[in-house]
Amino acid sequence: MTTPTVLKPRSGRAVGDRLARSARAGEGIGMPSEQVPAWLEARRRAVGAQVRRIPFAELDQWSFEPGSSNLRHHSGRFFTVEGLDVRGPQSSWQQPIIVQPEIGILGILAKEFDGVLHFLMQAKMEPGNPNLVQLSPTVQATRSNYTKAHGGTNVRYLEHFLQAGPHQVITDVLQSEHGSWFYRKRNRNLIVEVSGDVPLLGEDFGWFTLGQLKALLQQDNVVNMDARTVLASAPLGVDGQQALSSDTEVMSWFTGERSRLTLDAHLRPLDGIEGWLRDSHSIHRGDHRFFRVVAVAVEGAGREVAGWSQPLIEPVAPGVVGFAWRSFGGVGHVLVNARAEGGFLDTAELGPTVQCVPANYTRLPASERPRFLDLFENPDAGRIRYSAMHSEEGGRFLNAESRYLIVETDESSTPAQAPPGYRWVTPAQLSLLAGHSRYVNVQARSLLSVLR
Amino acid sequence: MTTPTVLKPRSGRAVGDRLARSARAGEGIGMPSEQVPAWLEARRRAVGAQVRRIPFAELDQWSFEPGSSNLRHHSGRFFTVEGLDVRGPQSSWQQPIIVQPEIGILGILAKEFDGVLHFLMQAKMEPGNPNLVQLSPTVQATRSNYTKAHGGTNVRYLEHFLQAGPHQVITDVLQSEHGSWFYRKRNRNLIVEVSGDVPLLGEDFGWFTLGQLKALLQQDNVVNMDARTVLASAPLGVDGQQALSSDTEVMSWFTGERSRLTLDAHLRPLDGIEGWLRDSHSIHRGDHRFFRVVAVAVEGAGREVAGWSQPLIEPVAPGVVGFAWRSFGGVGHVLVNARAEGGFLDTAELGPTVQCVPANYTRLPASERPRFLDLFENPDAGRIRYSAMHSEEGGRFLNAESRYLIVETDESSTPAQAPPGYRWVTPAQLSLLAGHSRYVNVQARSLLSVLR
Repeated sequence: MTTPTVLKPRSGRAVGDRLARSARAGEGIGMPSEQVPAWLEARRRAVGAQVRRIPFAELDQWSFEPGSSNLRHHSGRFFTVEGLDVRGPQSSWQQPIIVQPEIGILGILAKEFDGVLHFLMQAKMEPGNPNLVQLSPTVQATRSNYTKAHGGTNVRYLEHFLQAGPHQVITDVLQSEHGSWFYRKRNRNLIVEVSGDVPLLGEDFGWFTLGQLKALLQQDNVVNMDARTVLASAPLGVDGQQALSSDTEVMSWFTGERSRLTLDAHLRPLDGIEGWLRDSHSIHRGDHRFFRVVAVAVEGAGREVAGWSQPLIEPVAPGVVGFAWRSFGGVGHVLVNARAEGGFLDTAELGPTVQCVPANYTRLPASERPRFLDLFENPDAGRIRYSAMHSEEGGRFLNAESRYLIVETDESSTPAQAPPGYRWVTPAQLSLLAGHSRYVNVQARSLLSVLR
Repeated sequence: MTTPTVLKPRSGRAVGDRLARSARAGEGIGMPSEQVPAWLEARRRAVGAQVRRIPFAELDQWSFEPGSSNLRHHSGRFFTVEGLDVRGPQSSWQQPIIVQPEIGILGILAKEFDGVLHFLMQAKMEPGNPNLVQLSPTVQATRSNYTKAHGGTNVRYLEHFLQAGPHQVITDVLQSEHGSWFYRKRNRNLIVEVSGDVPLLGEDFGWFTLGQLKALLQQDNVVNMDARTVLASAPLGVDGQQALSSDTEVMSWFTGERSRLTLDAHLRPLDGIEGWLRDSHSIHRGDHRFFRVVAVAVEGAGREVAGWSQPLIEPVAPGVVGFAWRSFGGVGHVLVNARAEGGFLDTAELGPTVQCVPANYTRLPASERPRFLDLFENPDAGRIRYSAMHSEEGGRFLNAESRYLIVETDESSTPAQAPPGYRWVTPAQLSLLAGHSRYVNVQARSLLSVLR
């Protein structure tokens, strides 16, 4: 007895075309885009959470482990804050880092209404978000979440991402997160299309077209980091077939950069890492650069549990994340930078042209400032193709805001023949790489989400 | 002043078509294929090397480090043999493992003669090869090699792979090696096409078409592992556009497997790893399964240095590496297995249907034998699509021979709906994944090199 065999096309224009159609749909079957800010505000009020800074001693269920001083939850789950020792060719340093080995799920449910793909987004509260509630993926869950480590409620819609079913996967890829703050973290970025009925399981969910999400990405602090990275992982609707470098040349350049850039990073006890001090409320550098580890209590929230406290990482000042953009022969390109970050599993990934917190460099000589930073500090209005404030994952980072920019530059500031460590690629090339693990870092993926 | 901009196609059929043309060329401008065995034999005599097993105490420049008992070279270079502690959901174990953090270069130079791509191969002696001399890439060099850690001679042709030049890169990707024997090893697999004159720098080099290399891959122990993995990394000349699963479905399945399969592996001192014993001549398991660490002296060789001694890993018996092959709707598919191996950087990669040393299981109940192994032990001659003995890297492994097989199977033994952990993919799909790091393991890449 032979199972009848049905072959299918390995890939098709179909999904890309359908994503492009959704991107052209300025409104959908759900809430109009202009009502989203009021909805998020209403959700903020409904959640009614207060986030209050507390001393480490007031953390509930979290403590510094005797011996290592690593900060951990009594259950051994969620994450730990440990020490990292990084040795590189140019510099070596130690720092605190979040260790969270389990793979979380960032999943967006998609469904066609009136022939247009819509995406189910959640208005979700995260304690580190400057405005608490932002548009998030349908599901944003660590394994601890959905195996109920905090005795919480079920994660709504999770079953669509865990079980095989009559689904069509649009994207499914393990992506890295912040290599400066997370040790080898990765999340599964998923978009799954369903054909059956999907009821709205609460007032915190709504369906949006890609066109609506694109418009919302123009606003400050509306679309959260998890939503941005999942959207960036989806195939680009339009893919140009011409570029300054062939795909093989880009790959070969990246392989060379990954071979060349070496950082030797090892976990060590948080206790006594060089250059860092701990007081009652924070772990910070003696010179107050980079970031600090702090603790917050979340009160009165209607989230998975009634209230909780946890550590967060808080950068010392807002960041700048920017792509230089140029048109070559009528085709838009962005300038990527191969970056080694201490927490990356495989040393280097492609980041934006600039990714830094400028305040960290104010007291240093100009020669030590990040290359190309000046292009993003006071760009001419006419050269700004994109500008919005976004924050990083509010479950781990407190007020980690950056200005995300795409700025048109020219041959004098950013030559076509890019300097070592940099390369011009098209959004289509970046999107192709973002379909695989560990090529495009989370900041570059955020910018890629607005390039489609 | 603006640099004139020349856009190029991101990818083209050109390289694939030219590789396919070379694959159809049964002979080339160099040595006829039938003369290769005699040439390798002549090179074997010319090199005149003897490989002799020695006790560890006779190793020159290598010793067991006080404290850890890790086996290392006095220079601190080349590689070390350390201990690995592996904890998995089904089983946990400890083992010796080779640690070699530096990224080596496996490079094949390509050049067109009479409109057909030829590849520059070297008849290279490696002490662990059962027949010492095999066809190798143009360059096969660790960083220690080419920075002359053993005070050796220059690596011929290396400059083509280190310097940018008027070259066309055909493939350039970091690939993993044996996850059971190497800790997070990767090599840069390169094929670089040159247009200028390339003199033959010795009697150990020759130009071959892909068709010749395909024919030589049918013979036992002629094409070495490094050559096989580089050839497997090149784009497949012919790519079918139909398959049982779409590329996105294959990716999603693999992402799920990589999320599901977890192995926690940590280096530890070689001293006192559980289940292993050290005597004067070897480090081996008490039950003599899997492999042993041994030492050899290489004498009278005309290689980079006149003679040397080194440790090698020696499997206890020959292995079996096999793909089940089926045609679905007229399109050939192979059955890949998502495998976690202790030394992989990212937990899991796609391996062949079967990859094991059967002797390790002879004393175990049938239920503990590797799945599908019986299909490869005595297959009907009519079902064998490929069969040859190949050995693994002779610079690290002693007599590590396996029978490489591709066997046609049917619905009763290998259903179209593959069991968990397995999936049918086309050679074109496997080739696409082999163009990126850490998807296809080295054994599956060896088989992919014969599937083109």
